[in-house]
Amino acid sequence: MRTLDEITEILGDDASYYLDHVSKKISKERLTVPGPRSIDNFIESDRNPQVLKSLSQLYNHGNLAGTGYLNILPIDQGIEHSAAFSFYKNQDYFDPENIIKLALEAGSNGVATTFGALGIHARKYAHKIPFVVKLNHNELLTYPNKYDQIPYGTVKEAWNLGATAVGATIYFGSEESSRQIQEIAVAFEEAHQLGMATILWCYTRNNDFKTKKEDFHSAADLTGQANHLGVTIKADIIKQKLPETNQGFKKIDFGKYDDAMYEELTTDHPIDLCRLQVANCYMGKIGLINSGGGSKGESDVKEAVRTAVVNKRAGGSGLIMGRKAFQRPLAEGVDILRRVQDVYLEPQITVA
Amino acid sequence: MRTLDEITEILGDDASYYLDHVSKKISKERLTVPGPRSIDNFIESDRNPQVLKSLSQLYNHGNLAGTGYLNILPIDQGIEHSAAFSFYKNQDYFDPENIIKLALEAGSNGVATTFGALGIHARKYAHKIPFVVKLNHNELLTYPNKYDQIPYGTVKEAWNLGATAVGATIYFGSEESSRQIQEIAVAFEEAHQLGMATILWCYTRNNDFKTKKEDFHSAADLTGQANHLGVTIKADIIKQKLPETNQGFKKIDFGKYDDAMYEELTTDHPIDLCRLQVANCYMGKIGLINSGGGSKGESDVKEAVRTAVVNKRAGGSGLIMGRKAFQRPLAEGVDILRRVQDVYLEPQITVA
Amino acid sequence: MRTLDEITEILGDDASYYLDHVSKKISKERLTVPGPRSIDNFIESDRNPQVLKSLSQLYNHGNLAGTGYLNILPIDQGIEHSAAFSFYKNQDYFDPENIIKLALEAGSNGVATTFGALGIHARKYAHKIPFVVKLNHNELLTYPNKYDQIPYGTVKEAWNLGATAVGATIYFGSEESSRQIQEIAVAFEEAHQLGMATILWCYTRNNDFKTKKEDFHSAADLTGQANHLGVTIKADIIKQKLPETNQGFKKIDFGKYDDAMYEELTTDHPIDLCRLQVANCYMGKIGLINSGGGSKGESDVKEAVRTAVVNKRAGGSGLIMGRKAFQRPLAEGVDILRRVQDVYLEPQITVA
Amino acid sequence: MRTLDEITEILGDDASYYLDHVSKKISKERLTVPGPRSIDNFIESDRNPQVLKSLSQLYNHGNLAGTGYLNILPIDQGIEHSAAFSFYKNQDYFDPENIIKLALEAGSNGVATTFGALGIHARKYAHKIPFVVKLNHNELLTYPNKYDQIPYGTVKEAWNLGATAVGATIYFGSEESSRQIQEIAVAFEEAHQLGMATILWCYTRNNDFKTKKEDFHSAADLTGQANHLGVTIKADIIKQKLPETNQGFKKIDFGKYDDAMYEELTTDHPIDLCRLQVANCYMGKIGLINSGGGSKGESDVKEAVRTAVVNKRAGGSGLIMGRKAFQRPLAEGVDILRRVQDVYLEPQITVA
Amino acid sequence: MRTLDEITEILGDDASYYLDHVSKKISKERLTVPGPRSIDNFIESDRNPQVLKSLSQLYNHGNLAGTGYLNILPIDQGIEHSAAFSFYKNQDYFDPENIIKLALEAGSNGVATTFGALGIHARKYAHKIPFVVKLNHNELLTYPNKYDQIPYGTVKEAWNLGATAVGATIYFGSEESSRQIQEIAVAFEEAHQLGMATILWCYTRNNDFKTKKEDFHSAADLTGQANHLGVTIKADIIKQKLPETNQGFKKIDFGKYDDAMYEELTTDHPIDLCRLQVANCYMGKIGLINSGGGSKGESDVKEAVRTAVVNKRAGGSGLIMGRKAFQRPLAEGVDILRRVQDVYLEPQITVA
Repeated sequence: MRTLDEITEILGDDASYYLDHVSKKISKERLTVPGPRSIDNFIESDRNPQVLKSLSQLYNHGNLAGTGYLNILPIDQGIEHSAAFSFYKNQDYFDPENIIKLALEAGSNGVATTFGALGIHARKYAHKIPFVVKLNHNELLTYPNKYDQIPYGTVKEAWNLGATAVGATIYFGSEESSRQIQEIAVAFEEAHQLGMATILWCYTRNNDFKTKKEDFHSAADLTGQANHLGVTIKADIIKQKLPETNQGFKKIDFGKYDDAMYEELTTDHPIDLCRLQVANCYMGKIGLINSGGGSKGESDVKEAVRTAVVNKRAGGSGLIMGRKAFQRPLAEGVDILRRVQDVYLEPQITVA
Repeated sequence: MRTLDEITEILGDDASYYLDHVSKKISKERLTVPGPRSIDNFIESDRNPQVLKSLSQLYNHGNLAGTGYLNILPIDQGIEHSAAFSFYKNQDYFDPENIIKLALEAGSNGVATTFGALGIHARKYAHKIPFVVKLNHNELLTYPNKYDQIPYGTVKEAWNLGATAVGATIYFGSEESSRQIQEIAVAFEEAHQLGMATILWCYTRNNDFKTKKEDFHSAADLTGQANHLGVTIKADIIKQKLPETNQGFKKIDFGKYDDAMYEELTTDHPIDLCRLQVANCYMGKIGLINSGGGSKGESDVKEAVRTAVVNKRAGGSGLIMGRKAFQRPLAEGVDILRRVQDVYLEPQITVA
Repeated sequence: MRTLDEITEILGDDASYYLDHVSKKISKERLTVPGPRSIDNFIESDRNPQVLKSLSQLYNHGNLAGTGYLNILPIDQGIEHSAAFSFYKNQDYFDPENIIKLALEAGSNGVATTFGALGIHARKYAHKIPFVVKLNHNELLTYPNKYDQIPYGTVKEAWNLGATAVGATIYFGSEESSRQIQEIAVAFEEAHQLGMATILWCYTRNNDFKTKKEDFHSAADLTGQANHLGVTIKADIIKQKLPETNQGFKKIDFGKYDDAMYEELTTDHPIDLCRLQVANCYMGKIGLINSGGGSKGESDVKEAVRTAVVNKRAGGSGLIMGRKAFQRPLAEGVDILRRVQDVYLEPQITVA
Repeated sequence: MRTLDEITEILGDDASYYLDHVSKKISKERLTVPGPRSIDNFIESDRNPQVLKSLSQLYNHGNLAGTGYLNILPIDQGIEHSAAFSFYKNQDYFDPENIIKLALEAGSNGVATTFGALGIHARKYAHKIPFVVKLNHNELLTYPNKYDQIPYGTVKEAWNLGATAVGATIYFGSEESSRQIQEIAVAFEEAHQLGMATILWCYTRNNDFKTKKEDFHSAADLTGQANHLGVTIKADIIKQKLPETNQGFKKIDFGKYDDAMYEELTTDHPIDLCRLQVANCYMGKIGLINSGGGSKGESDVKEAVRTAVVNKRAGGSGLIMGRKAFQRPLAEGVDILRRVQDVYLEPQITVA
Repeated sequence: MRTLDEITEILGDDASYYLDHVSKKISKERLTVPGPRSIDNFIESDRNPQVLKSLSQLYNHGNLAGTGYLNILPIDQGIEHSAAFSFYKNQDYFDPENIIKLALEAGSNGVATTFGALGIHARKYAHKIPFVVKLNHNELLTYPNKYDQIPYGTVKEAWNLGATAVGATIYFGSEESSRQIQEIAVAFEEAHQLGMATILWCYTRNNDFKTKKEDFHSAADLTGQANHLGVTIKADIIKQKLPETNQGFKKIDFGKYDDAMYEELTTDHPIDLCRLQVANCYMGKIGLINSGGGSKGESDVKEAVRTAVVNKRAGGSGLIMGRKAFQRPLAEGVDILRRVQDVYLEPQITVA
């Protein structure tokens, strides 16, 4: 009860809006909802038993062990946003051992970072917390900055360093996405053959997705379709931003859409928008974890809890949150992650 | 004591500026500092025992053997700057046996040069001094000159000729860097599988990095980020120019930066700028060796000693110096390299 | 306290003999003793990170998770002793799913059985409890009965069905042992390359090991040497019978021995005899699990607890007990396994 | 009703003995009983989807399609008993196309014969009726006759000619069984990797199994244990003779047995003896098909129907009958096979 | 001078016999004598540069580094003589880390022991002292004891754990030698391909080599021929017992010999007998190291020094001594090894 009270207090005036909403467009009865036996969803799949074991390691580690929910610590901003910019607020994280230690301290399900960071400490930690090796990156040292995810190592190299899962990003919507889809489809199959699980960062990216009025990079329809492409190349877990808007296809006017489509599937409520993302993950058979977004200081706790509530109530499987956790002192970072975990541990917060 | 006196004398008026500085932005307590057991840092890594042995061969050869510091002789200017231009000052080095002899005579930890130069003398010298085979090059015979590092042989070929390590260059910042990152990431993994160590020449290169006012190719922030990308693809040793300026991201206005970032991590002091490079090598867990730069004649000794002092006091692991050594008579070249070694052998020169 | 009292009561008049003994021949100070960080012993070894993860899965499953102790349920008597004879007391176990269920119900660290039994339920259970696939067997349908362990499948096949570890038996002392040593050395290396852990059933077997007066198959010196051969071919865990006698080399008069050898290393006390087995496992760096022996009905509980106390106090790492558990109703079987676990969970039972 | 009447009539005076028996030693509640969804038993197994497809082709072909029961036509007596001796009664079968035609005409689930016989007609029939390639044989041309099954081709060769399943024989009990177990275990794994199903002819063979008084080659305990060894090396279907006696271990005095074992598991009733064979196939999770035995002329129909009733009521999965069908005119052969099929199609004949 | 005096004193009355002898049968002028450039002997060989590097690591480690002489610590008696019997005098060595530590402490060139012992500490020590992995063994647990060296792992496995060289034993003269020659010839070629050096333990073994009067297992002619077979399968270093007698071929009457053969090549002087062993190693182009023999207590120092003097003066390349070093307290063991090293470091002890 205490937990629910705290969460309610953190959400403040919006508490009821998030906690009492009932989704009517895509009803929860249609969903495969996360739970202690979530991995059993894969018994009938084509994933081999070693992949099921890898998923089990991920789902059964840390504070959320056995719940069917995930809280993964991802820190690859050293590459994606540059190291100095990412770590100047807490220099500890220039040393990647502290990334792993934060994940252990916070009771995360796993730690997702780079080949180099996991490799340098592989033998000390790979048996203590699941490693998710991020296979590809975009760096910001090329001028002018380009946005293209390229591989920084091989799938076998990830296995060699003790990985439980591999992660990869595809910039759906971009010119490079066709090449990336092919690269990652092959990489995921290789990972599966080696017994590792697969997590896809389903980004959308295209300059034209941002109009003068609105940024559709996190539109429910576009991110939802990105998810659907992701499960198609056999991601075992989908990582996606929380939707903040909708009708990307319509407003940018591309792809296929009609008004009834939006009407039948969505409302403006964030939980309903996120529900569309879940639906696009084979109605929840593939778990959806939403990302935490950047750190904005004081509001981070509320933002994190809100995101967790929306994800959980939409039928999602957890959060993957980095910046809100590592761009501050360790204790504060751990505290935020624990509060997120509390949302998933609280049985009174149910699927909407 | 004698050594310290000599070094102080060589540094002249600047001696105290370099020798007495204390770094306060990124404190030395955060660093993994070089020492006799530096290779043990890799015990917990994903590098296999044969890679550890290769690193040990490199670190335990020559005058700096057993100190945790490196002094590598690199001569690939025959390709990179053309042979005639590079060797007219000392024709000896058209014959690559003299490159190896210089390294032996100077008590270097290893000699880094081309497939051809090492191959032609492989059986005579590979067991006498560690070979670092430079895998890729840019040549200046193409018109107009282009700047793109391309492979000149295979990783297995390097092993076949007795290599202890492979070296490679990436031109970070350039359009070609995406291809080079992928090429070298795969090559380094192959080298590791064959038991060789890996050294990355982390160049920055982009015409726009040189503005009318300043040349940011050796800016601390850009080179630091280049290092961070290098350790991510599992370089065991990072080769970088000594930083000469800072705020490349800001002044060129790209990537991600803010003023606080520069304020928190750097000052104008060369040791602090180099410290940022070390921080970007996993806080010193991966060794940073700085390059010696071109030969300018008389000032070379002072310049070389100054570079060594800055590198050592910043927390670096040594120097890789070529032109200052080979573009003069053998005895003088050896003398310069010995003076650099003295800096690392002198216990009173400590990490700032 | 309650647990210790119960154990003391079960041991009856012998309690003090077992619980208060101090080993003076090979002192406990020389040993690597099991504990929560036992797997870290392998960080410096040649086992790859995936093997460390497999060991971690085994050591961190079930009621003894995180203690450094193991309680593995082995049921391959369907082959080794014939199915009808093994299972007529409890027909449930003709269906191998019940073998796995017993291990789950009892909170064992893992279940060790055959290719067929684990294969038929691989996708349902391999992610729920670590599988130990027994690679080789001796069956009793050949007439006249022979005693030779032969492979019943391939190492890769074990990986395919989700194995966390492979197990194998060598009949040391027998004519066939030379072939078996070679077969299993190669199999264990392959298992390690695939990321699985290795457990060796270090049997001794030779008709001449049983004299008219005594049966030396479980002599401390012979079984100890069997262990030493086992760790040499890189078993990660050694399975051995509890020693019941000593001086096999001397009494049968073979190998190398002298009186001082026995005098310096052993006494008659069962804990000291078992200590010699532990010493032969690299002084405890490789874990020793003792087997439980056949079922004799009422005395089974006492016998099981006694074995656990001797193993734990000698410096061993746990028990592998089958027949005492499965040749009775499920609830009783679970009860015996729980009592064995209690010995390892009780902090007041220490290494002698 | 008509069918049951016919079967009752064929069984004559013994009808009630076979049709009304209830097994009380190993009750039918413990069994996994054949049915339309039998292949779903393998969903949780380590067999890959292509193997499930092969099993499905076998189970869903011919007159018994979709029932969970099998009626396979095996004709390899040309090798095992010599061609002239086997085929002089009906010369048609010197031409193997007629073997395949008989199976098609009779609505069998598949046809099991040699590499040569199936190979010569592969392209014409492999898509019309499932091929079961018998991998190994014993021939009678070696003098003096020996009894040792040796491979007559490769697993890949079977796949190449269109096989849906491979079959193999092991002579359990014989000196050669150790080699055969290893050979077939590896072959079955390879077949599974190639997506084919596996059928094991679980023969017992040893001159000492026939005593002056009795022939224990088809004793329920010996054949049962042979089955248990067969499922351990991952046969998907077990082929075994119908048991005709019991207590082989006891009467020959080898292996492990006691009176209680026989008492608890068996009676003299043929269905109970066969039930022990089923129990040894993981309590029916692996299908047991009994063989039809030699042709004795007029009594063949009764004998065939009796065998089918015993097999079906014991919990078996069908018959594999050759000689009774091909050593007579085609129409008669087809008639016998149809009568066997009728037993399995008749819903009033239930598991005892 | 001091060293020579000490050695002279240790040799006592025999000093002049050993120190002043001049070999006249096979003169030293014919020999390739060990020296700082010994490895350069291989420049013209078929060994690849990585093999030369491995030899260089071995020859340039420890107190004899750079002399061309070797002092290797071999401890595999835990297998060959049984662990309890080998280690009861100093229990430390049950833990193989102490084997490595002894070699480090004594400044040996390398440590030769088993897969298991080196594997368990591979990453901590393989870069600190060259590992020689003994590939095959004979154990004494088989009853009756047999004498046959069989492989305990693979060559690649040795490379994986960081080996610089592999070692193997052949029992020349025995029935099994044909198989062993083939096994080791292939293994040595594989080791060379992987860049490792090769050391052959050239044992002779045959019950008939011991007559009632004499034991010819260490006869100069037989051991010499064993050496000659060893260099033929490309051992880079030959390990052999010091010869104690001669005329094995003649006295046992086998092979080919005549009196002139013995007359031309040998005398009774131990240095001349050993000279014949050296001549059989391609006149010293392949280094000969003699073994130290068992420990006899007080006389060990004298025996060890005597062996070293004979080996060095005969033209040998060093000693491989185990039992005299490890079957006593560490300090005493180190002292004996140091005294042996002194013989090789003393320039006044020259080739006879």
